[in-house]
Amino acid sequence: MKQRLERLQNWLKEEKVDVAFINSTENVFYLTNFYTDPHERLMGLVVFQDREPFVVVPGMEARQVKAAGWEYEVIGYADHEDPWVFIEKAIRSREIEKASTVALEKEVLSYGRGESLLTILEGAKVVNAEDVLNEMRVVKDEKEMEIMRRAAEMADFGVQVGVEALQEGITEMEVLAKIEYELKKKGIREMSFSTMVLFGEKAGDPHGNPGDRKLKAGDFVLFDLGVVLEGYTSDITRTVGYKSLTDQQKEIYNTVLKAEMASLEASKPGNRIGDLDQIARDIITDAGYGDHFPHRIGHGLGINVHEFPSMSHLNDGILQEGMTYTIEPGIYVPEIGGVRIEDDVLITKDGYETLTNYPKELQIIE
Amino acid sequence: MKQRLERLQNWLKEEKVDVAFINSTENVFYLTNFYTDPHERLMGLVVFQDREPFVVVPGMEARQVKAAGWEYEVIGYADHEDPWVFIEKAIRSREIEKASTVALEKEVLSYGRGESLLTILEGAKVVNAEDVLNEMRVVKDEKEMEIMRRAAEMADFGVQVGVEALQEGITEMEVLAKIEYELKKKGIREMSFSTMVLFGEKAGDPHGNPGDRKLKAGDFVLFDLGVVLEGYTSDITRTVGYKSLTDQQKEIYNTVLKAEMASLEASKPGNRIGDLDQIARDIITDAGYGDHFPHRIGHGLGINVHEFPSMSHLNDGILQEGMTYTIEPGIYVPEIGGVRIEDDVLITKDGYETLTNYPKELQIIE
Repeated sequence: MKQRLERLQNWLKEEKVDVAFINSTENVFYLTNFYTDPHERLMGLVVFQDREPFVVVPGMEARQVKAAGWEYEVIGYADHEDPWVFIEKAIRSREIEKASTVALEKEVLSYGRGESLLTILEGAKVVNAEDVLNEMRVVKDEKEMEIMRRAAEMADFGVQVGVEALQEGITEMEVLAKIEYELKKKGIREMSFSTMVLFGEKAGDPHGNPGDRKLKAGDFVLFDLGVVLEGYTSDITRTVGYKSLTDQQKEIYNTVLKAEMASLEASKPGNRIGDLDQIARDIITDAGYGDHFPHRIGHGLGINVHEFPSMSHLNDGILQEGMTYTIEPGIYVPEIGGVRIEDDVLITKDGYETLTNYPKELQIIE
Repeated sequence: MKQRLERLQNWLKEEKVDVAFINSTENVFYLTNFYTDPHERLMGLVVFQDREPFVVVPGMEARQVKAAGWEYEVIGYADHEDPWVFIEKAIRSREIEKASTVALEKEVLSYGRGESLLTILEGAKVVNAEDVLNEMRVVKDEKEMEIMRRAAEMADFGVQVGVEALQEGITEMEVLAKIEYELKKKGIREMSFSTMVLFGEKAGDPHGNPGDRKLKAGDFVLFDLGVVLEGYTSDITRTVGYKSLTDQQKEIYNTVLKAEMASLEASKPGNRIGDLDQIARDIITDAGYGDHFPHRIGHGLGINVHEFPSMSHLNDGILQEGMTYTIEPGIYVPEIGGVRIEDDVLITKDGYETLTNYPKELQIIE
């Protein structure tokens, strides 16, 4: 944590930013190890170039900030108190009367809170703190990797539960309910996004929603799910066949699998990020399904289920050891259904490791 | 929907606001009947005093806006396009070159989006659109009431499943998993907040989290849960005893029940909102537990699980027909446990209706 804070402080010095106000659950967690979502109540971490940083939280959470390991000042406020009064006092007590530049999270800080901050630091120029934090979060440390491996194992387990639940006539929502039930019994309190279980033609719509559709022979079954574990996310997609598949369905499956494997194989330090999308896209296009792969190959993964880097063909960034992201090509054909295969990937010293490990060979469930 | 839009337009005229930019899932839904959460992508509803309003959404959702009944312009943009270019064009095409005042949602619009908007409407004064929308949403119409009744029935059902699942040694998370499993099988895709199932001393902490705690004789069991149904929320709390309760536990339960009933009885048009908290608080204080009721009596309920009005003793507002809110007094005693009883309440022409109806007489489960 200290190193992360120091990196942010160094950035403040380089960019001549006097004050950074960090407000999001994710970035406060990343910098303090304290994870909370106080909803409408204000939480903030205030960082300076070389003064003592402080955290402001609803009073009842103040002790937990310390318990998480935060060694600096914690300011708790009661519901009837205005946290901005405390923030102003704490800033002034650090002998900062005026700031020329303030950094805040432009995408997540609310307009009203930005106004309050700028009332305290009147006339300051505003810059975005998100770019540097996104950059910092892109490369995971050992502890983060270890948590993400366990989060991914839970996602594997969720797919296994789903596959085992398949039977003639069961609905998408029933299968989804079983998956989340078994995960909750293992202590998972939160999925990283709304679980998807889609049958047949429903799987052919990349924006479909699970419902009453009943399972029948000849269907593809697409599972897309992930969990939140100790602040980190996982995200897996697997597709299986039910009872029978046509030759075209098998061809679609094997094309997606080939595309996914090729993209994984290109996952190593020094390679261009955008190439991972292009490699998979070329294979799908060559097989005649280029128009049926309408999304990027994946997204960064960590505290947020979608974070940096964006795994788009336009991304000229370079893969580095410690990056974690998804690889998830898909082919969606109306009426016939869709196939997507997704793994969570960690870049290692000389290649990659998949964090998700549920089998990928085409399975036809009897 | 049209009436709602007209009310907003009238407010714009009264307050001399030229442009309102509405960005939240909840308020866009309230004004257009279109419900979506496009996550990091931009969605916006732009309203003028007397020009045609328009909606801007990610392209793939444009058709759904029309399908929801929106009769005015819809602008879809692709992922590689900048939606602000379209917003600027649409505003200019309505012959608005400069706005003296713009209304936006200060609590939910991001700072960055506020900046983008003010780049288009340079120099405009910013006012908050939330106050008028919160006011409008406070009084529900027949259709909203009907949906909220069904959402509350699902919450009742969730408690029933939880009570039936109780058995020696079962954990909080296992009970929670069963509740959500059965609700999902009934088609519920989203809970309105993280479900709480707390046993024994865990129920004595108003901020406790469900975990591995096993059920044993003498425990209070506290359930707090709700669902999202067709865009509206429910929120119920019930507490039961397991196998045996001490006289003090029974006294605590009956004090909370008496407080809740008294507060319900005061729920009718014309009464002061703050009195509902005070009435319950006085009963709990008289019984000697005043220090153990650390939160307000409830909160408004609707599209958001916490919305206006705030049911605090400080609220001098007056109850009106069509308001919906929770009444949820509680007593939390460390070591002994906690009791909270919560109903969703609708103010009728001359009294109230509880939307939640799971029994409240003290139950001791064998």
